[in-house]
Amino acid sequence: MKAYIGLDIGGTKILGVLYNEAHEPIARVKKKTKAASGKEAVLDQVHKVVGGLLEKARDQHIEVDLQGIGAGCPGFIVEESTIVFTPNIPLKDFNLAEVMESTYGVPFVLGNDVNVAMYGEWKASDMQAAKNVLGLFVGTGVGGAIIIDSHLYTGQGGAAEIGHMVVNPEGAICGCGSQGCLEAYASKTGIQKAIQAQIRKGRKSLLKDLMEADGPVVKSSSLAKAYEAGDSLAVEVLDRAAYYLGIAVANLVNLFHPDLIILGGGMVESLGDALLPKITEEASRHTLTGLVEGVRFRLSHLSDDAGVYGAYRLILDHLSQDA
Amino acid sequence: MKAYIGLDIGGTKILGVLYNEAHEPIARVKKKTKAASGKEAVLDQVHKVVGGLLEKARDQHIEVDLQGIGAGCPGFIVEESTIVFTPNIPLKDFNLAEVMESTYGVPFVLGNDVNVAMYGEWKASDMQAAKNVLGLFVGTGVGGAIIIDSHLYTGQGGAAEIGHMVVNPEGAICGCGSQGCLEAYASKTGIQKAIQAQIRKGRKSLLKDLMEADGPVVKSSSLAKAYEAGDSLAVEVLDRAAYYLGIAVANLVNLFHPDLIILGGGMVESLGDALLPKITEEASRHTLTGLVEGVRFRLSHLSDDAGVYGAYRLILDHLSQDA
Repeated sequence: MKAYIGLDIGGTKILGVLYNEAHEPIARVKKKTKAASGKEAVLDQVHKVVGGLLEKARDQHIEVDLQGIGAGCPGFIVEESTIVFTPNIPLKDFNLAEVMESTYGVPFVLGNDVNVAMYGEWKASDMQAAKNVLGLFVGTGVGGAIIIDSHLYTGQGGAAEIGHMVVNPEGAICGCGSQGCLEAYASKTGIQKAIQAQIRKGRKSLLKDLMEADGPVVKSSSLAKAYEAGDSLAVEVLDRAAYYLGIAVANLVNLFHPDLIILGGGMVESLGDALLPKITEEASRHTLTGLVEGVRFRLSHLSDDAGVYGAYRLILDHLSQDA
Repeated sequence: MKAYIGLDIGGTKILGVLYNEAHEPIARVKKKTKAASGKEAVLDQVHKVVGGLLEKARDQHIEVDLQGIGAGCPGFIVEESTIVFTPNIPLKDFNLAEVMESTYGVPFVLGNDVNVAMYGEWKASDMQAAKNVLGLFVGTGVGGAIIIDSHLYTGQGGAAEIGHMVVNPEGAICGCGSQGCLEAYASKTGIQKAIQAQIRKGRKSLLKDLMEADGPVVKSSSLAKAYEAGDSLAVEVLDRAAYYLGIAVANLVNLFHPDLIILGGGMVESLGDALLPKITEEASRHTLTGLVEGVRFRLSHLSDDAGVYGAYRLILDHLSQDA
């Protein structure tokens, strides 16, 4: 059976899924990344995921004819092969494609994790007729993907950093060192910072207890719970996030006049139904007359599988272009 | 001799240039648009420009074998053929390609005037190896062009409205109805408004006399003169324009990670050398580490010929793709 592997190489775990040609998952393996143990340890974990997938297929008596492997990884990737920089994994300046292709004897493509995940969300959507698509991913950070003429666009490798669009030049300092980035307002990290600052100065909020139970990073579900209960702090901070997301969406519409915008990530999956109308209303204030009306919006739905699914679809497309 | 026509259809005048295959202009004709006299009058003027070009070639004893016509026109253009909306010319909802192709029996392509002009600037630059290029046009208004994989990208037709990127959401109201658009700060219109407001409230400035001599719209050369003389009002308003242009450039770099950004338009041609270092410095503050270093910058140089030259290169490329 022709089969393909999608890998999602993250800072803490590596997820792999083996797919058949009908986009159906055949096997799934998750391992720790072991980022702190160095490059060889991480590569070893990647191989264990791939090996584990092939073994699980054998256990099911499936004869796998592996066609290719796709992968997503955080950071700055060039030529669908080389990691120039990745923040939390010891694979800087590393040509992962070379290693993977020589080990498994099949083509390998690599992309930025968020680019790849949003590409997967598009491929899994009901909007295959859309050719120019933007993905906006709102989670711990904010990222995105630009799909032009049905292909992932990466520019010189670092494109689609939508989270670092400046939406308020005199605004909040962002973790990247810039000021007023979308990520500073709309990411879980930015939201948590704003909430904690208010709680520290004595503001009452349901989020105080919820966040203590959540541990170091607030859960999207806790934010949703407080927002739905009308907690004034949650409403204030999340409505501000929606406001800036609306401005970012307007800028994307005015720049790309795309067919489709997909909003994804944990924040969207928990709060999308509540926030989407606010985001599109704000976007309408700032788009040129006539532009936003033709743009469709979708909320993502693959959740944690977006990365592996996108990686699989990326290698599938790569192979069909070469054929 | 194989020849091609580039047309720049503006609100007040239509410029046409006949080119040979070596990108050399053979003849040039300029006529009034006669926009106030209605659709047939405008089309008549277009035909007079084309007819005039062919006649001028005959006068030079050049036997013209016309291959195609390209054109740029303000507004929202779809399918390289149809004007959906144009602000000052009575050609709304009009398929200009149909008329032109049936009249002249050669292929015709149409684009947005600023898109086409900045495409021309790229084609005339020393950066043909650049495949992903952004053009930022700063004149009476602010517009742009997005070139992806060497082709003009227009999305659903209205893309590259860089002038309406929101760079300050609580800022100046823009002519488009939105708030804080780049155009409100960096266009000649926006700059003039800010200067006039200060002069009305009694601020002293060299620009008072210069603007009175310029008539209804301040000339870029007057702005340059006052800026170079260190006039405090000119410096204040133009440095603010450079600041917001820098933020827009940063957003373009973070989104597209392009090979090249070309800055063009009257404002840039008069003030580019003075403002470019300020623009790129501000952009560097807001771009992700490592991104802006690989991006090249160029100032435009075709001036009023950018539109006709871009239109000519557009039809030339269109024909070579079909070949």
